[in-house]
Amino acid sequence: MATGEIESVLKLANEFSKLPGVGKKTAMRYAYYIIGLSNDGAKTFADSIMDVKAKVRLCEECGNFTEESPCSICKTRSQEIICVVKEPKDVVAIEKVKGFKGVYHVLHGTLSPMQHIGPNDIRIRELLDRVNRYGTKEVIMATNPDVEGDATALYIANLLKPLGIKVTRIAQGVSMGSELEFADEITLSRAIEDRRDL
Amino acid sequence: MATGEIESVLKLANEFSKLPGVGKKTAMRYAYYIIGLSNDGAKTFADSIMDVKAKVRLCEECGNFTEESPCSICKTRSQEIICVVKEPKDVVAIEKVKGFKGVYHVLHGTLSPMQHIGPNDIRIRELLDRVNRYGTKEVIMATNPDVEGDATALYIANLLKPLGIKVTRIAQGVSMGSELEFADEITLSRAIEDRRDL
Repeated sequence: MATGEIESVLKLANEFSKLPGVGKKTAMRYAYYIIGLSNDGAKTFADSIMDVKAKVRLCEECGNFTEESPCSICKTRSQEIICVVKEPKDVVAIEKVKGFKGVYHVLHGTLSPMQHIGPNDIRIRELLDRVNRYGTKEVIMATNPDVEGDATALYIANLLKPLGIKVTRIAQGVSMGSELEFADEITLSRAIEDRRDL
Repeated sequence: MATGEIESVLKLANEFSKLPGVGKKTAMRYAYYIIGLSNDGAKTFADSIMDVKAKVRLCEECGNFTEESPCSICKTRSQEIICVVKEPKDVVAIEKVKGFKGVYHVLHGTLSPMQHIGPNDIRIRELLDRVNRYGTKEVIMATNPDVEGDATALYIANLLKPLGIKVTRIAQGVSMGSELEFADEITLSRAIEDRRDL
C-alpha cells in the first residue's frame, strides 16, 4: 500500500473491479463516489446488494431469476410455445421487444466441449420434462448465433423432434440498419441461404 | 415494471446507475453479476461499502480522505512545501509519480462564480492557517489547467505572496507522447510562452 492510500477504499475498489468490464481506475472512481455518498445513501446501496441475494432465486419452471416461483411470466402465460435462451439477461432482451407472448426456458449455459459443459450441466432435462408436462407445441431455440449456441440448438432439436414437437431457430442474417459491405462472410452467407419470398 | 423484471434487481441496478459514467445497460449487467455472487461474496461487497463510510473522513491538516487524522502523509512529511489540489483523487494521481515529497492541501472544489462557489466554500482559510503554523516556504498550485483551476491558483497566490511565500503553478504545455499537430491552440500557446532553456 503506497503512502496516502486508504485500506478500506482499496478494499472497496477491489470489489468494484470484479464487476464485468471494470478496470482499476474505474473501480477507484466508483469507490470515491461511495465516499461522497451520505450515510443513508451508502446504506441503501449496501442493502440493495444484500436484498438481491436474499430475494432472487430461480423459477422452478423456466429457470429465470425471480423473487417468487413460478415467476410472473410462467404464472400468466401459455406454455404452448417455449423460447429457449442461454442466460437470464437474454429473457430481458427478448421481453423488451414485446412481440413474444410465450414462456422462456433458461439453460444457464450452452454445450461447450472445450469448457467441459455437457448436456447434464445445463437445464436440458428440465426442458424435456416441461415439454412433456404441458404438451408444448413449439420450442424456439434462441441461443446465441455462435458455434456453441448453434450446437446446443441442434442438440436439443434432435431430442425434441422425435416427440413430434416443432423446433425452430431464430433467424440469422444481416442486422437492421447495418451496411452489407461491413457484414462478415458467415452472416452474409446465412442471410442469402435463409432468404425469403417478398 | 415490465413482466419478468425483478423489483430488487431493478433497485440494485438503479443504485449502480448512479455511479459515474454508468448507464442503464451497464448497471443491469452489474446487478446480474451480484446475483451470481455467493452469499459471502455479496456480503463482502456490501460490507466494504459500509466500511468505507464508517472509516473514511477528512484529514484535519490537508483535507484528504484518510482513516486516521492527521493522515499518513501529513504525519510523516515536512510541511515546507504544500501542493494544493482540487480533489482527493488528484493526490492519488500525484503520489503515483513518486517525485513529490511534500504534503498536500485538498481544496474540495475550485472557485466558480457560475456555480456560486466562492473563497469561503473551499478550504482556503485552512491553507492560510497551515502555512502560518508551519512556516511553509513554497506552495505549488496543482489545480486543473482550466479556467476555474487557473483562477483559483491566481486567487490563492495573491493571498500568499504578501506573506513572503513562494507560490508556483504546475507547468502547462504539450503532453509527453502527443503530436503537436493535434494540440489545441491554448495549450500550444502556453507551451511556447513557458518555453525553457535547453
